[in-house]
Amino acid sequence: MIPERQWLQWVASAAEAAAVRREIRLGIGDDAALLRPARGCELAITTDLMVEGVHFTRARARATGERLATRALSDLAAMGAEPLALFVSTAYPADLAVAWPRELYRGLLAASTAAQAQLAGGDVSSSPGPIMLDVVGVGQCPVGAALRRSGARPGDGIYVSGQLGRPQDAARTARWQLGMALRRRASAAIDLSDGLSTDLNHLCQASQVGAEITAGLLPANNFEAALHQGEDYELLFMLPAGRRPPCGFEVTRIGVITRAPGVFLVHRKARHPLVPRGWQHFAKS
Amino acid sequence: MIPERQWLQWVASAAEAAAVRREIRLGIGDDAALLRPARGCELAITTDLMVEGVHFTRARARATGERLATRALSDLAAMGAEPLALFVSTAYPADLAVAWPRELYRGLLAASTAAQAQLAGGDVSSSPGPIMLDVVGVGQCPVGAALRRSGARPGDGIYVSGQLGRPQDAARTARWQLGMALRRRASAAIDLSDGLSTDLNHLCQASQVGAEITAGLLPANNFEAALHQGEDYELLFMLPAGRRPPCGFEVTRIGVITRAPGVFLVHRKARHPLVPRGWQHFAKS
Repeated sequence: MIPERQWLQWVASAAEAAAVRREIRLGIGDDAALLRPARGCELAITTDLMVEGVHFTRARARATGERLATRALSDLAAMGAEPLALFVSTAYPADLAVAWPRELYRGLLAASTAAQAQLAGGDVSSSPGPIMLDVVGVGQCPVGAALRRSGARPGDGIYVSGQLGRPQDAARTARWQLGMALRRRASAAIDLSDGLSTDLNHLCQASQVGAEITAGLLPANNFEAALHQGEDYELLFMLPAGRRPPCGFEVTRIGVITRAPGVFLVHRKARHPLVPRGWQHFAKS
Repeated sequence: MIPERQWLQWVASAAEAAAVRREIRLGIGDDAALLRPARGCELAITTDLMVEGVHFTRARARATGERLATRALSDLAAMGAEPLALFVSTAYPADLAVAWPRELYRGLLAASTAAQAQLAGGDVSSSPGPIMLDVVGVGQCPVGAALRRSGARPGDGIYVSGQLGRPQDAARTARWQLGMALRRRASAAIDLSDGLSTDLNHLCQASQVGAEITAGLLPANNFEAALHQGEDYELLFMLPAGRRPPCGFEVTRIGVITRAPGVFLVHRKARHPLVPRGWQHFAKS
């Protein structure tokens, strides 16, 4: 591992070359970054942790960096927030070759630059065990326009973006443009990070409603993967009856919000309870 | 370890009981938190990583939680920012008894509540190795009033708050009230997290100046500890000549900023280069 100071200088240079946003008034290098949201906007802030051996292996550094950025950007998309900045804290074994974190940051910066977000800070430490990565995503949204999990109402249509249950090595892009287009249009939204069965149950609990989705409507080749696989990074959202989805995005209506609680899957005219079987962080231990 | 969902509910309840700020429009429970800074303010954002076996041992969970909060709050203090929110990401071994993270959060919430900051989010994961803790601090500051490392000018007086080099188990409080009082008064500031010798060198490099401090003026019993020990969480700041420190705070003038580069310590009428010997994250490996 290279000395901390040189490493931080490399990160700062790479970040500055990648993207600079006017809302970031001070980036890497001081005790804190300074951000000024656009007039009339508030900030959305999210954190996501990735641990070697739990969320990723050491095999593909660049893809891991892309996923790290995508996780944060996807949370911002689910709020309808415009991405502004990422902060990344990393702990590495002291004997890790520097090529690994460099590739990680290249992937991270490629994904964040594509979303016009600036890497604005972070921290670094040695680790006596696995590599640990924590990302903070900061976005902005007009006051009162953010999408929440809690706004779904009976009769709302249930929609998803893109394709579900794709192979785990397929490239993902966070749906932040769709999220922004859903402001003041969708009644509720969540991103599909833990799997449709889990995330739809989360949203219904937050909104105190139920849901019925139809297997035949799912935009997927593999139903099992579409229902329970995590890390799709697509958006799951609700539109009031009669309201159409925004133009120019690939979205599919898959069901309806119900007054009665419980989440159900209609398959071959039978109605099955859709139990959360997605990602659970402590389930495997 | 208890299931993730119940654990997050415990954290959310504990956080809500501890502190609620009106700037936090949405806290724990959605895809992101929502923050609206006060009128005319921008946000300061900082991250700090703590790794078991590097920064702490498992012996004292509550004190570790207090330190975690103090690290973030101290960075905000060094910017002159008013603390608003903390976000905490944690990775634990799956067999860790739940009493440990509960005590950690009790310490964290005690320290953040004392600074009127709200725990507004975070993430949790299992860890196949050590416990890892990452804290994000968010504060606010009137636009243009934030303190930076880069503003020190030749002739400025050098000041520190409190006492330096105290025993490592002494309780620390972040100096956020002093930081706010230094807005539009101090020319530069940094918090003493890596040790005076290291942090003063960082600040002088950022300001492109030198410094001369006097051993006899240091507010300390143990000079060696005062110069090189990390985690004092006091503020090191500069005031233009003739400007007095704010009333009501324990601060000591310890030297002067020089045009010539280099940081020097005057001891018994001799002038010694003050080489950084504080905390280096990869130095021990």
